[in-house]
Amino acid sequence: MIRVCIAGNSGHAATVTRALPGLPQVEICGWCRAWPGEPMTEVLEDFEKLGLTPPEYPDYLTMIDTLSPDVLVVDGLFCDHEEMTCQALARGIHVYCDKPLALTLTGLDRVREAAQSSTALLWAMQTARFDPWFYTAKQLIDAGEIGEIRLLTAQKSYRLGQRAPFFRDRAQHGGLIPWVAIHGIDFIRYLYPHAAKTIFAHHSTMANQGYGDLEVTAQLMMTLENGVSAQVSADYLRPANAATHGDDRVRAAGTHGVIEVRDDTVYLINEHNDGSTPVPLQYPPAIFEDFIATLEGHGSGLLDLAESLEDSRLALLARDAADSGCAISV
Amino acid sequence: MIRVCIAGNSGHAATVTRALPGLPQVEICGWCRAWPGEPMTEVLEDFEKLGLTPPEYPDYLTMIDTLSPDVLVVDGLFCDHEEMTCQALARGIHVYCDKPLALTLTGLDRVREAAQSSTALLWAMQTARFDPWFYTAKQLIDAGEIGEIRLLTAQKSYRLGQRAPFFRDRAQHGGLIPWVAIHGIDFIRYLYPHAAKTIFAHHSTMANQGYGDLEVTAQLMMTLENGVSAQVSADYLRPANAATHGDDRVRAAGTHGVIEVRDDTVYLINEHNDGSTPVPLQYPPAIFEDFIATLEGHGSGLLDLAESLEDSRLALLARDAADSGCAISV
Repeated sequence: MIRVCIAGNSGHAATVTRALPGLPQVEICGWCRAWPGEPMTEVLEDFEKLGLTPPEYPDYLTMIDTLSPDVLVVDGLFCDHEEMTCQALARGIHVYCDKPLALTLTGLDRVREAAQSSTALLWAMQTARFDPWFYTAKQLIDAGEIGEIRLLTAQKSYRLGQRAPFFRDRAQHGGLIPWVAIHGIDFIRYLYPHAAKTIFAHHSTMANQGYGDLEVTAQLMMTLENGVSAQVSADYLRPANAATHGDDRVRAAGTHGVIEVRDDTVYLINEHNDGSTPVPLQYPPAIFEDFIATLEGHGSGLLDLAESLEDSRLALLARDAADSGCAISV
Repeated sequence: MIRVCIAGNSGHAATVTRALPGLPQVEICGWCRAWPGEPMTEVLEDFEKLGLTPPEYPDYLTMIDTLSPDVLVVDGLFCDHEEMTCQALARGIHVYCDKPLALTLTGLDRVREAAQSSTALLWAMQTARFDPWFYTAKQLIDAGEIGEIRLLTAQKSYRLGQRAPFFRDRAQHGGLIPWVAIHGIDFIRYLYPHAAKTIFAHHSTMANQGYGDLEVTAQLMMTLENGVSAQVSADYLRPANAATHGDDRVRAAGTHGVIEVRDDTVYLINEHNDGSTPVPLQYPPAIFEDFIATLEGHGSGLLDLAESLEDSRLALLARDAADSGCAISV
């Protein structure tokens, strides 16, 4: 058995519990709240649905030192990702951590060093790589359907809704760019895995409905290798009346076509497609299935440590660019 | 009668001939090519459809000095907009000029001074303000349907197709940002008419199919007043197989809703709309109809000199930002 502990559910920890039906070799051996009163709603509901009753622990360190699990799921306050990850890696425990991996560049260096000195695997929860629509776009691009990519745009738009108190405090949540726009950065790096050169960005807390430091709008622009550029727009302004919680999009224009993901659907215009008929979706493994498969030596390669670190690094640099108002060389 | 001369058709001069059926008080009294061999296809086809046979002149100066028209339509090489406009304004002739109004900031200052010292009217052909979809979005925003705008994104995507030789030479065409991305800048300024603060941009000639200096991709990002930001993406990568020549879009997210223009259709999500049903379009006058109405003292106010100048100024600053790789304070 692969023994897994879950610490917190303030982000995407339910990507673990949702994957359990396909992972008979995985056992949830313990869980803890990451902060007092953390509701952990999705994870606890999934436990109930699955008939699981793993024991609750008072904190993650007690849990991992008691249980010595194979994997720690790190999904606490975003400011705690760094410390929790480093503690687990130092014990040789594999870490499946929500993004960003740290809230500062020095913290990210610490995570990088901890991962490089450990035999354990570390992934950030860059979930989009495993969404069928983004995965399908990736497969089509890799198959040459739009030629060489020249330009990308990405969007994340969420409902603000009701959020936990820590979203009021940037020291705890880190900002809209490292938390939300980072997915857009990952859309771009997934489809065009080349180095960034310069980042410009902006964010604003205005109209945040009393959520303290929480930025509700952010945009960034990156220049990348080979004269390619990319834009990411992220907001918490999606109206409550919208059909879905989120509105994720990416568009990549290449030398021989344009591909677009919108409404969980893939549109392709090239010599063989006029864009009017959605492309049939292809289905990757679930992200946590692939994490486990990677531990077992047969992962898909869709995500790895280097990509996880680079997404976080670019997001933190973009946040710095937005804070300073200056373009930053990467 | 209002007597109009047309000089060139390398851009949007056909917005004049298309509007003629609704303008019985307008007479086309002459036309000229703006460069040797200029095909003037759209304008000449419209003349034929309308049964018009205005005389051709060898050049615009001979034409305006011979005819003393009320209006000169300036649609020559983009590098000639400035000189042609200033010559006409100095003679008190109203000018309806394609964008950008000049290819340099000093040239634009010259145009500004010429317009301010003239009794004649000057407009740039910022056609999007008169597209029913953008006009409808503008009306809905002005009616408060999305609250206060916080963030905007805009797209221009064209087929490259076959282009006139001058597109190979930046000294003559000015670049993708002042020619194409300027429409995106205008989408943004139309919907959010507030001052820009900082511009960052990028452009690239790579994959331009042998078109010399012609950039085929460009992106820019602007910070605006009140913590608002905006992005524009422009390209000539729209595949030949696409349903339309262009793919114009804008999305504005506000404090109470999101509005989007896509496929010449308006989508609105707010308290009363879930975005699934397109908003019925409202119809403004045609741009040249409104130019004539403005001369007659009863224009709509959708466009004016100040907006025309500011669009061009921001486009030229964005091109400078792209050339330098630095963010520019506006």
